[in-house]
Amino acid sequence: MQTLIKNGTIVTALGEYQADIAIDGEKISMIGRNLPGSYEKVIDAAGRYVLPGGVDNHSHFEALNSDGVTFNAGYDTSYVAVLGGTTTVVDFASNDPGKSLIDSINYRLEVRAKGKVVPDIALHALCTDFSEETLEEIPKLVEMGVPTMKMFMAYKPTPMYMDDFKLLKTMQKAAEHGMTMFVHAENADVLNVLRDQYAEKGLLAPKYHYMTRPPYSESEAVSRAVTFAKAVRCPLCVVHVSCAEAAEVIKNARADGAPVVAETCPHYLVLDKHKMDDPDFDQSCRWVCSPALRDKADQDYLWDALKRDAVSLVGSDHAPIPMYQKYWGKDDFRAIPNGSPGSGDRLNVLWTYGVAAGRITRRKLVEIFAATPARLCGIYPQKGDIAVGSDADLVIFDPGYEGTFSVETNPTGVEYNAYEGMAQRGRPETVLLRGTVVVEAAKFVGTPGSGRFVPGKPYGMAYDLL
Amino acid sequence: MQTLIKNGTIVTALGEYQADIAIDGEKISMIGRNLPGSYEKVIDAAGRYVLPGGVDNHSHFEALNSDGVTFNAGYDTSYVAVLGGTTTVVDFASNDPGKSLIDSINYRLEVRAKGKVVPDIALHALCTDFSEETLEEIPKLVEMGVPTMKMFMAYKPTPMYMDDFKLLKTMQKAAEHGMTMFVHAENADVLNVLRDQYAEKGLLAPKYHYMTRPPYSESEAVSRAVTFAKAVRCPLCVVHVSCAEAAEVIKNARADGAPVVAETCPHYLVLDKHKMDDPDFDQSCRWVCSPALRDKADQDYLWDALKRDAVSLVGSDHAPIPMYQKYWGKDDFRAIPNGSPGSGDRLNVLWTYGVAAGRITRRKLVEIFAATPARLCGIYPQKGDIAVGSDADLVIFDPGYEGTFSVETNPTGVEYNAYEGMAQRGRPETVLLRGTVVVEAAKFVGTPGSGRFVPGKPYGMAYDLL
Amino acid sequence: MQTLIKNGTIVTALGEYQADIAIDGEKISMIGRNLPGSYEKVIDAAGRYVLPGGVDNHSHFEALNSDGVTFNAGYDTSYVAVLGGTTTVVDFASNDPGKSLIDSINYRLEVRAKGKVVPDIALHALCTDFSEETLEEIPKLVEMGVPTMKMFMAYKPTPMYMDDFKLLKTMQKAAEHGMTMFVHAENADVLNVLRDQYAEKGLLAPKYHYMTRPPYSESEAVSRAVTFAKAVRCPLCVVHVSCAEAAEVIKNARADGAPVVAETCPHYLVLDKHKMDDPDFDQSCRWVCSPALRDKADQDYLWDALKRDAVSLVGSDHAPIPMYQKYWGKDDFRAIPNGSPGSGDRLNVLWTYGVAAGRITRRKLVEIFAATPARLCGIYPQKGDIAVGSDADLVIFDPGYEGTFSVETNPTGVEYNAYEGMAQRGRPETVLLRGTVVVEAAKFVGTPGSGRFVPGKPYGMAYDLL
Amino acid sequence: MQTLIKNGTIVTALGEYQADIAIDGEKISMIGRNLPGSYEKVIDAAGRYVLPGGVDNHSHFEALNSDGVTFNAGYDTSYVAVLGGTTTVVDFASNDPGKSLIDSINYRLEVRAKGKVVPDIALHALCTDFSEETLEEIPKLVEMGVPTMKMFMAYKPTPMYMDDFKLLKTMQKAAEHGMTMFVHAENADVLNVLRDQYAEKGLLAPKYHYMTRPPYSESEAVSRAVTFAKAVRCPLCVVHVSCAEAAEVIKNARADGAPVVAETCPHYLVLDKHKMDDPDFDQSCRWVCSPALRDKADQDYLWDALKRDAVSLVGSDHAPIPMYQKYWGKDDFRAIPNGSPGSGDRLNVLWTYGVAAGRITRRKLVEIFAATPARLCGIYPQKGDIAVGSDADLVIFDPGYEGTFSVETNPTGVEYNAYEGMAQRGRPETVLLRGTVVVEAAKFVGTPGSGRFVPGKPYGMAYDLL
Repeated sequence: MQTLIKNGTIVTALGEYQADIAIDGEKISMIGRNLPGSYEKVIDAAGRYVLPGGVDNHSHFEALNSDGVTFNAGYDTSYVAVLGGTTTVVDFASNDPGKSLIDSINYRLEVRAKGKVVPDIALHALCTDFSEETLEEIPKLVEMGVPTMKMFMAYKPTPMYMDDFKLLKTMQKAAEHGMTMFVHAENADVLNVLRDQYAEKGLLAPKYHYMTRPPYSESEAVSRAVTFAKAVRCPLCVVHVSCAEAAEVIKNARADGAPVVAETCPHYLVLDKHKMDDPDFDQSCRWVCSPALRDKADQDYLWDALKRDAVSLVGSDHAPIPMYQKYWGKDDFRAIPNGSPGSGDRLNVLWTYGVAAGRITRRKLVEIFAATPARLCGIYPQKGDIAVGSDADLVIFDPGYEGTFSVETNPTGVEYNAYEGMAQRGRPETVLLRGTVVVEAAKFVGTPGSGRFVPGKPYGMAYDLL
Repeated sequence: MQTLIKNGTIVTALGEYQADIAIDGEKISMIGRNLPGSYEKVIDAAGRYVLPGGVDNHSHFEALNSDGVTFNAGYDTSYVAVLGGTTTVVDFASNDPGKSLIDSINYRLEVRAKGKVVPDIALHALCTDFSEETLEEIPKLVEMGVPTMKMFMAYKPTPMYMDDFKLLKTMQKAAEHGMTMFVHAENADVLNVLRDQYAEKGLLAPKYHYMTRPPYSESEAVSRAVTFAKAVRCPLCVVHVSCAEAAEVIKNARADGAPVVAETCPHYLVLDKHKMDDPDFDQSCRWVCSPALRDKADQDYLWDALKRDAVSLVGSDHAPIPMYQKYWGKDDFRAIPNGSPGSGDRLNVLWTYGVAAGRITRRKLVEIFAATPARLCGIYPQKGDIAVGSDADLVIFDPGYEGTFSVETNPTGVEYNAYEGMAQRGRPETVLLRGTVVVEAAKFVGTPGSGRFVPGKPYGMAYDLL
Repeated sequence: MQTLIKNGTIVTALGEYQADIAIDGEKISMIGRNLPGSYEKVIDAAGRYVLPGGVDNHSHFEALNSDGVTFNAGYDTSYVAVLGGTTTVVDFASNDPGKSLIDSINYRLEVRAKGKVVPDIALHALCTDFSEETLEEIPKLVEMGVPTMKMFMAYKPTPMYMDDFKLLKTMQKAAEHGMTMFVHAENADVLNVLRDQYAEKGLLAPKYHYMTRPPYSESEAVSRAVTFAKAVRCPLCVVHVSCAEAAEVIKNARADGAPVVAETCPHYLVLDKHKMDDPDFDQSCRWVCSPALRDKADQDYLWDALKRDAVSLVGSDHAPIPMYQKYWGKDDFRAIPNGSPGSGDRLNVLWTYGVAAGRITRRKLVEIFAATPARLCGIYPQKGDIAVGSDADLVIFDPGYEGTFSVETNPTGVEYNAYEGMAQRGRPETVLLRGTVVVEAAKFVGTPGSGRFVPGKPYGMAYDLL
Repeated sequence: MQTLIKNGTIVTALGEYQADIAIDGEKISMIGRNLPGSYEKVIDAAGRYVLPGGVDNHSHFEALNSDGVTFNAGYDTSYVAVLGGTTTVVDFASNDPGKSLIDSINYRLEVRAKGKVVPDIALHALCTDFSEETLEEIPKLVEMGVPTMKMFMAYKPTPMYMDDFKLLKTMQKAAEHGMTMFVHAENADVLNVLRDQYAEKGLLAPKYHYMTRPPYSESEAVSRAVTFAKAVRCPLCVVHVSCAEAAEVIKNARADGAPVVAETCPHYLVLDKHKMDDPDFDQSCRWVCSPALRDKADQDYLWDALKRDAVSLVGSDHAPIPMYQKYWGKDDFRAIPNGSPGSGDRLNVLWTYGVAAGRITRRKLVEIFAATPARLCGIYPQKGDIAVGSDADLVIFDPGYEGTFSVETNPTGVEYNAYEGMAQRGRPETVLLRGTVVVEAAKFVGTPGSGRFVPGKPYGMAYDLL
């Protein structure tokens, strides 16, 4: 099928210009003015911005347990991503105890996501059970298109927890094979000390979640991971950086040549911890995520850090946890599953509170929303850019829309939207996934299972970082 | 005229991809694969990289004195820039004592450059005689397409020297009007103290040039300018950063939110000060430039700083000073005109010692050689990118070429090439200026006077910096 | 005369212990318990702390103009220092245009101070008119016991202003001869730009004094002076550091090995700029000093900096300016003489808001109030310590006193006390100057002219700094 | 007994002066000139410096195992300390698995050291087996005069290893009770990863000891401990800082207000890692200690850090390991007991390579050798100073001595001296312990068992650090 998008303003991570885009099948075939040829479909983007489809570096549509039972809302709900202008999600494939990462990836792709996932999907290996075999899997993962792996520095003493021994050995091996490492950086012991001390005193409400995860519990772990990355020259992405202390560690490390980038998330940019002070558990539980929400001052620091590239990308950390699961922790904050949904509102939040608020440029938005995550995961320029030969993943964005975030207009896959009631400016009007319109007039018009696995190449941003 | 460049690999500041480029008149009209249409001229770029034409942020083709007499080789020699893949030069227009900047700019464009300059030309106002009228010229300069101004912090007690009073007032005014300031940052008094002390001891050979310009004379002035830029929120470019000390000041200031970018030059990246130790004046005088060449360790620091964006662009500081002028300082290094030619070899040096040596990626090269200078000067995306609607300024680069830098193969407009004898890898094979081939088979085939004034827009990189 | 001070707690810069002190003539002859011998005078210090007499590194009892006319209250009023526990003042001897520093020092000692000055007096040369002869005076100054020199980086275009040329040459020479340099660090041009801009807008009240001396005008100059000190290896004291920005520059420079110490003053530790907001000129004019008072947050930073030795001593910058002189600037803040009295309350402020408030230890107080200033000026251990052989300059301090700062109880030599109305804890009860009681029951009982010149030795703290 | 030391130059941490010292029994009773009274013993110190007896913050005369069997040479050999001018050693009392710290301390004092130890002895609790009871012991330890505790961050998976959980909980409790924490800071996992990787490759010689303990393994752990200290406001001493990376972490943390001091050791100041390159195991094994010896550049950094108080004291880490024990690791560096003797040469090394080499002043030497360790351990001013009421622990130091370090002249308690063959300048000639001469003419003339337990007070340097 031949499609023409005309009269729009194209925005890339470098800048913006007026041009039309011709799509031949799944790819962008031409960009130009007054493009010749005949088209089956012509979309008029006058008065609109044309952005590359977003790449969400960080989503958890399904968190599988060892019985194949899934927590979180599941791939059925992944249409929310494309509604929000994200055409590629990079989900995490964890290995259950005793299982290989490769098997877990295959199971996820072939069984869980198949026929359901709407956006294209790339994967991070998420090592939740380490053994010497894990190291042997690294070159094979790279070969199968999974050149990234995440580890948890928190959650001791579960098998998810990776001590420095495991982390360092994995980084050494990853560095050899062009794999980029990702870490959830929180000091496991600090959390355990504080959480138990609060609990012993009977302090069990959701607000104690943030009181027992102080900024230093995050910045310490960041510092440690960054030290290892520099020592073994392994490219590293610290995910969900939430506070000034942690971001500053990364800023300094980058200045000193450490091969590290930082991701933050929309919620750390616009929400603060006092959301959890609500005495109504039904409200306060929604924002229990890790790291915890921080202060207003941290939000300012993070916006600024994005501008100066101390923090380099924004992923959603989408965790669509249904309310019944949140209620597991009604009597003890330690039992509340951590996470909030957000893949669908990543662009809306960045536009409203970044671009429209004058904090970042449109060019910068594309960089942190699409181009940099794509490069980091080794799927650039197939994804993350508007360029000839790239996948025709495009967002036609209406900057004039004015609304209010709500779960009705901005579905999340679960019963609530983390930004409920906040003002919204602009929204994706039309979204194309590999040349096919999947969102029209801001409604999902696509098909379950349209998503395809996008294999990544190794070395992602290595040459920019090392 | 319709031109097609086919089979090449396009490299932009974001990445690279395979596509053909159609040119309609002076502009890029289409980018695509299997582009339809008929073309008067087809250039096969198979096995070649297609880069945007370079933007040289820093050239002094003519340094005019108050009688309209020119020092330096003159615009007649500006073909050397396009031979080296630079299709836009940003030259400096200084005002003689008592004259306005606007008059000086007009005289330079309409009298001096007219009919001679080969690449397109943008201009920085170079305030060498400050008065209250200078401040009043600022909005008019911006309006006429000159949104940048440079000041010298050195050269006391000539009228070129700007003390902090003049610099700060100018920055205040510049900030109001979106003008970006540039500084030559060396502490005037430190230089005067040291130069006279050496001269009084009879130490007059060229090597005393570098001994009397220690790194702290540069880093101090950088620190001062950066402090002012931050205080009055005026975007600032520190030109020709030569050493680790100065680059570190900028790195730290950027991390702290100062609106500053740094430029370095090819010679600081690959030449060291010991060039000036040659007892043969005819040799040692050639590398007398300001700031002085530094140590090997500084070169490493600067390459690294480019990678991490502590230094953001590379300009040539092209000063084609004929040997007879250099000889003015035969008996006293203080009388040697400062400067070396380099606009023609900016790309060759960056490719050979950057890309081919594995220090920077091709993408990064385009960023520091074309995209960032264009953005800084407010002429992006007309210049500095390969995008639909941009000027068809293109370099078809042959990465396979192997040669040796020499004034015969790499002319400079004067009798010598600063890199004489050093190995060269790759070179521009074909260069187009606004759709017209001006270099073919690495020979200049253009016409004197082909260059056109490129008016810049204000606010350049302001939104990225503030 | 033989004096015994018994039953007190001796406090030095290292710590405290119980012991008696025997004084033989002007010197401490013995320290011990149950000291043998017979004494003409026995002072019971039970329940009291015995501190070394203070060394005020920074006083301006008389600011002489070229006609020998004195501004400020004069040496007649110097008894206020000893009332406040300061037994040695280090005053500044400036040279009028065309006069030598040595002559100015001799005139000051032999004519102005003679018969009047109460505490002992050491001197800083204050170069307010620089010539090549100034450099030649340096070794002679060192020889005559004046091993320190101050320069003003502000006050352009008066002869008091020293540009970088003069400052750097002086530092070079000072470094050779063991002279320690002092600077008043404010960027002269920044002040001139801002002051005139405010005045042109008719903003002439005292509060515009602080608005036109922003922290960056200070921190920039500090940074510059520190750079020179490091480059030429000249020990440097930055006087009256008033704000976090400036103190941070010094903290970082010290960490990087620059031979620099910082002095702050009592008023920067406990008063803030809003004192100048008072619409009553008679009030607001009193706190016009340079640098200007800052914010509360700066006070916290400075207390902390004292603790961690980023700021190393506290001088008073005593300037007893009578009200009629302050009124010179009734209609224009630029004409208000800069300065406030404070030598008499240095100890009272440090004790009340430092020791009694739990911010610093008694040991630390002695360090910043007596020991470090003495070492800096090359008069330690003659002054600044309680040790055998040291001058018997002693303060018997009553920690139980509770009062209120007021010009009646705490005279200043002029009509007002800068701390009027603030609570006071503790006070000097008895003060001895070289063995003679000069304060008894908190009343001055000494004699005009008791002060003697204390020649300093070169290299002060050089070996700790270089 | 009444003793008089006359004609010497007294050196304290503040400065030096001429005075005589009278001793009455065990205490300094008077300091003065021409002291009256009659004395049973008069020591002429003309031409000599009189220093306070050294306080060695860090010694392991006996490392006890669970059967009461001792490794290291034992308290019998502790006379080497006083020969070297150290009159107080602060030894470590570790608890065997399942035993309490208090019992271990009592056993050590009452059984092991009794009748043997020559210098006075204070103790650090060394928690090598943590349980909840450990926390309960903290207030009792403080009460019994042991206000300091050390933990190992290395040596996983032995019980000696303390993970962050144990460390943080202990710091929290310590902070409440004024206990100062000490850490051996090396990342346990990093060491395990590297040591096993080398061993698996058959790289087992002593030199692999240093290759498997890179600076980052130390600096990471330092950073972590310092983060915790700051978070819970617990004063912390990082012992045996060996390298620039680690010292820089501390320098920065101190500047940011973390309550931390650093100790280095004589061997890190003058020996480098290439000592371990000797192919003769009998030689190379002697310098196997932890952290490992580093590079020449690190030595320079540490001397400089001592000057600027980034590193604040020098302990010996005395570990007199007999050669037969060193030989346990003949075939595998991992089995070589870590440590070298040094308590006897701490002063000699600091004087020869510090004072005599012009790197530090005599005043500074007293600070890092005696005063600061005493303050840190809560035994100042009883120990560490020459002041009335302090213990008469005195070193009469002959600066004119010239010799060569050797185990014959400078015994260590074992078969070797770590500085064998190096030039020595100056030495303790006479040493008094609580008024009794224990070294005369540089020979030990004391009695086994002369040492007495010195209980420390809590809060050591807390008020300087918090």
